[in-house]
Amino acid sequence: MRALRLLGARDMKVDDVPEPRIASPKNAVIEVTKTAICGADLLPYWGYVPDFEWGTTMGHEFVGVVKDVGTAVTQVKPGDRVVCSSMTSCGVCWACRRGMQPQCENRALFGFSGAYPRLDGGQAEQVRIPNADRDLWILPPEVSDDAGVFVADILSTAFRGLERADVSLGDTVAVVGCGPVGLMAILCARLSAGQVLAVDTVPDRLGQAKALGATAIDASAQDAVAAVMDLTAGRGADAVIECAGGAPALASAMQMARVRGGVSVIGAHFEPDFPLDAGAMFAKETTLRFSIGSPTDDRETVIDLIRLGKVDPTPTISHRMSLEEAPEAYRLFEAREATKVILAP
Amino acid sequence: MRALRLLGARDMKVDDVPEPRIASPKNAVIEVTKTAICGADLLPYWGYVPDFEWGTTMGHEFVGVVKDVGTAVTQVKPGDRVVCSSMTSCGVCWACRRGMQPQCENRALFGFSGAYPRLDGGQAEQVRIPNADRDLWILPPEVSDDAGVFVADILSTAFRGLERADVSLGDTVAVVGCGPVGLMAILCARLSAGQVLAVDTVPDRLGQAKALGATAIDASAQDAVAAVMDLTAGRGADAVIECAGGAPALASAMQMARVRGGVSVIGAHFEPDFPLDAGAMFAKETTLRFSIGSPTDDRETVIDLIRLGKVDPTPTISHRMSLEEAPEAYRLFEAREATKVILAP
Amino acid sequence: MRALRLLGARDMKVDDVPEPRIASPKNAVIEVTKTAICGADLLPYWGYVPDFEWGTTMGHEFVGVVKDVGTAVTQVKPGDRVVCSSMTSCGVCWACRRGMQPQCENRALFGFSGAYPRLDGGQAEQVRIPNADRDLWILPPEVSDDAGVFVADILSTAFRGLERADVSLGDTVAVVGCGPVGLMAILCARLSAGQVLAVDTVPDRLGQAKALGATAIDASAQDAVAAVMDLTAGRGADAVIECAGGAPALASAMQMARVRGGVSVIGAHFEPDFPLDAGAMFAKETTLRFSIGSPTDDRETVIDLIRLGKVDPTPTISHRMSLEEAPEAYRLFEAREATKVILAP
Amino acid sequence: MRALRLLGARDMKVDDVPEPRIASPKNAVIEVTKTAICGADLLPYWGYVPDFEWGTTMGHEFVGVVKDVGTAVTQVKPGDRVVCSSMTSCGVCWACRRGMQPQCENRALFGFSGAYPRLDGGQAEQVRIPNADRDLWILPPEVSDDAGVFVADILSTAFRGLERADVSLGDTVAVVGCGPVGLMAILCARLSAGQVLAVDTVPDRLGQAKALGATAIDASAQDAVAAVMDLTAGRGADAVIECAGGAPALASAMQMARVRGGVSVIGAHFEPDFPLDAGAMFAKETTLRFSIGSPTDDRETVIDLIRLGKVDPTPTISHRMSLEEAPEAYRLFEAREATKVILAP
Repeated sequence: MRALRLLGARDMKVDDVPEPRIASPKNAVIEVTKTAICGADLLPYWGYVPDFEWGTTMGHEFVGVVKDVGTAVTQVKPGDRVVCSSMTSCGVCWACRRGMQPQCENRALFGFSGAYPRLDGGQAEQVRIPNADRDLWILPPEVSDDAGVFVADILSTAFRGLERADVSLGDTVAVVGCGPVGLMAILCARLSAGQVLAVDTVPDRLGQAKALGATAIDASAQDAVAAVMDLTAGRGADAVIECAGGAPALASAMQMARVRGGVSVIGAHFEPDFPLDAGAMFAKETTLRFSIGSPTDDRETVIDLIRLGKVDPTPTISHRMSLEEAPEAYRLFEAREATKVILAP
Repeated sequence: MRALRLLGARDMKVDDVPEPRIASPKNAVIEVTKTAICGADLLPYWGYVPDFEWGTTMGHEFVGVVKDVGTAVTQVKPGDRVVCSSMTSCGVCWACRRGMQPQCENRALFGFSGAYPRLDGGQAEQVRIPNADRDLWILPPEVSDDAGVFVADILSTAFRGLERADVSLGDTVAVVGCGPVGLMAILCARLSAGQVLAVDTVPDRLGQAKALGATAIDASAQDAVAAVMDLTAGRGADAVIECAGGAPALASAMQMARVRGGVSVIGAHFEPDFPLDAGAMFAKETTLRFSIGSPTDDRETVIDLIRLGKVDPTPTISHRMSLEEAPEAYRLFEAREATKVILAP
Repeated sequence: MRALRLLGARDMKVDDVPEPRIASPKNAVIEVTKTAICGADLLPYWGYVPDFEWGTTMGHEFVGVVKDVGTAVTQVKPGDRVVCSSMTSCGVCWACRRGMQPQCENRALFGFSGAYPRLDGGQAEQVRIPNADRDLWILPPEVSDDAGVFVADILSTAFRGLERADVSLGDTVAVVGCGPVGLMAILCARLSAGQVLAVDTVPDRLGQAKALGATAIDASAQDAVAAVMDLTAGRGADAVIECAGGAPALASAMQMARVRGGVSVIGAHFEPDFPLDAGAMFAKETTLRFSIGSPTDDRETVIDLIRLGKVDPTPTISHRMSLEEAPEAYRLFEAREATKVILAP
Repeated sequence: MRALRLLGARDMKVDDVPEPRIASPKNAVIEVTKTAICGADLLPYWGYVPDFEWGTTMGHEFVGVVKDVGTAVTQVKPGDRVVCSSMTSCGVCWACRRGMQPQCENRALFGFSGAYPRLDGGQAEQVRIPNADRDLWILPPEVSDDAGVFVADILSTAFRGLERADVSLGDTVAVVGCGPVGLMAILCARLSAGQVLAVDTVPDRLGQAKALGATAIDASAQDAVAAVMDLTAGRGADAVIECAGGAPALASAMQMARVRGGVSVIGAHFEPDFPLDAGAMFAKETTLRFSIGSPTDDRETVIDLIRLGKVDPTPTISHRMSLEEAPEAYRLFEAREATKVILAP
């Protein structure tokens, strides 16, 4: 079967690989129908993941149809249309028992190796699922493959970031970073927020944020913190969702929060020494909270929001391409010429 | 009347000053019966408070008896035995309406000037209370003057830190820093926590922590983070209360928290660039939350806990002295030879 | 000045009465610009309120302009455009300190007597406000008089009912009773709910519910409980808001809730012996919670929701009439020929 | 092996029955070391359970040692000392996924039939466990068999009732009914409550309640509602835990709650028409919430509380007898001559 393998930094190839097979009673094999490129895919692509095994099949956002299941699988059967959580988890460890899938002691991320045990991903015609009863979820008819792909990671991640931001009805929510995750955060935030303020520097992203109902703040043209203050009677946002990752976004998010407000971070962070203004946090009594997406814990709610038409992530899809075009798709995505690319094997 | 005035850095004198008088309909004057020295008093004492007006009367922890009230005061009357919140607040601004006394737009701290509008404090025979209906609270007979002094600030502050730590019944709570505030945090934590782990380096403080029911960890003799891990099956504390202030305590507190755990900071912080391990926070999905004590919002509950015998702060009193001995008392407190000093005018 | 006085059961008259005057330093007098009839006004109208003093001026929903203030009033001044909470409260008692305005020890309801101390209401050209700093709130320019009238009671009440229903993003909320309060509940529920199910028997009310975004269930044409089950995969609603008052509505609301779900009651209830199916509550582990509107506690958030366009109550206004037409307005309202009537003095 | 079988109403016999065997890959067999009689065991004993199959082995509170496990079991192994949840559950249904074990679509209660699918219980030398990975939990060395028996049901049930009562630090908690479950509620309540008020009529139970730290109120000698009011400055309890079951206890619990307070019911209820004072609930804005114990969801926390010495249920054990004496033990328990009986096979 065909699969997108990463052979080295920025060196990828759609290749013939052996078809995956059931290797344990808990496994399933699914035939991928749609898969997407996520910002996190760029980390191995850029060679940033220590001990990554070159040759690993990429991709942790995918939906498909169940082809085969192991003898212990009871929740899905061949023919079911399913979405797969970006990360596998065991369901029985201390973290899983508390609904903390991202902290599972036995986790692995599809399309990754090195940082976690190798787990070949879903940018391929087929993919083996380690713990099918937990990793997979059946999509209702109202949720298309295109929409379902967002449940695997970024929409669930944004939902989690909102949930952990303690937003009350009518609050002002600022979203820092309007890439794909940020746009998902806007979709979730506008449900309960009074106003959603969207901060970025890329005109196209700001345009999309505005189309989704946010007030756009162009940080390249104005002082974003001052703009947030202006729009909140000088108080700052009740909650800030940091979706950009990296130190500058975090620093500006901290300044946007009102007294006793909170910054909920879902952008990826690796800085060991971010210069935190602890004095300001003390004076303002603010809260800083980091979260990783937890699709296995949140997917039912997220799918319901799509099914009921409360949230529609598909307008953020900028490109639909074939699996064979994946290397070109990565190039577009890396260059920010594409917002969200959906690949069909 | 006699009052302890700060004349310059480390230069204080018990002096004759004019008796305070009612200057607005909302004022009261109280005759102080007991007052205590707080760690925050050392900031002006050391000359660390910008624009402090030399001559300000010290002290924000005090109880007394109402001597006189303005015409608009309805909640207290002459003869009432009262505790005064360390900070005055207006009760009508946006922050006060939401139960955020420390963020009051019209706040001032007794015994301070410079950082806030000058407000002469309670280390004196008498003190004027700006907003008596809100600043004062009548002590029930079961709560002694000595115990009541702790309600003005440090016991309420510790209570707030616990409240904002989201502790569930049976959780492991680590308290970093066993000075007076830390000891109060232990008193509050042991009510609902499963185990309380107390971290410090001063033997006497660790002894007091142990006497209050905590498991003492001597950070000068062992790796405190490793000790917390050992006592929590390698997971870390469910909640950490940082009561020491300063960067080293905060850094170690962050490492003690379990995945999805939280660090609730009530120690004072002024670092503009604390080197935060954002990568670890992201990986562990932790929460960092700063709080300032809010006695006006919390005093009723705190007083009830004392009244019912659930919390008794008085064993931490190491010295009882007269107001005239205040300069010597500050010396002992600064040298950490005293844990908590109560002065009687 | 002109005022609508209730002289006996169903006997009301627009009459000349003396202009109200400041009688205490905390009072204000406002000139009413808009006032509405509330379902609760029908209780004295029908003669159901024990010890009601005939002659009391009606009305607890009104907005106006401040004409005069007492010497202790600091938060409003003559000329301010304000909404008045339906119930006055002291702000200092045990209940007020905890944000429980409806439980204030010194409460009184505008336009009522008997059940509470007499307090002449706002269906008049002018009205005296007992505790102006707390009872009144300045309307921002974006909130019209017509919209502001809803803040005084029914929109705030609906908001409170939702807040106390613990609705999570995406939940199914059933609203039982689509009178004015029920329509307000739909407006609030649709912000965070996945789907809102609206139950009533009056076609016009169901039509309005549908126009506001709810799925309408006509309880006269179908089994409403069965319909809710059908729309929730047989589980029942996550939260039910009972807005009708009375035993039949409550009984049906209880049956609509899912296991571990909750019924939040904002309809008025006076039954001393409602036949509760305690066995079903035990088996399903459900929660039943009653709430009274608390506009003084919630008005800022509710006003913000209007200001930002998240909630617009004005489409439920069916009639705009003059104060002189008030008796006819009551007749229409009682006959359910009017949904919401706004009177202009 | 020997097992206590219920042959008819009040007709039980310790009998020889075949040893249980592994019948599915998820099963385990355990050798029971200690088992207790629960109030719920009296329902089939009295013949109150419709369609109960005479001959069913009794008992849902037991600890033991794993003897054998099926091929799919991964969390326990032969030799492990374990407690078994009173009710089996599947772990994958809608309710289980949300931490609502008592609402599991595939639940069955050990020692019952009729109301649920038959599941022979643990008042026997051995017992088959349907879903071992979920039903069983390994006891740490610090938790004795005697203490562990309480985790299976009544201590976990009491814990759940407290959790669902929204108790804040320092609150007054009233416990209505001081049978075994009520005593467990006192043990849990006193951790975070300011005062615990215990209501019953049986002197011995009131004595035990007092010994556990509660203030005892003898409802046969005084008006219990008035007594609660006296002890709470006329306000009522912040939270009431109803542990008695039945209408009179519930009626009195409702009257004891303060405004905006809550009644958390863990007593068993089967009344289809409890005469609820809906008018009082509306006026007081109270909350009524029913709960069933959920040991599979709560056992880790409960076990930790025992392990750390925060809770010790064993002083409530009044009798230790052999399995052969079970019929006599039931007689004592039914007559309330025994508080808690532990049987050893």
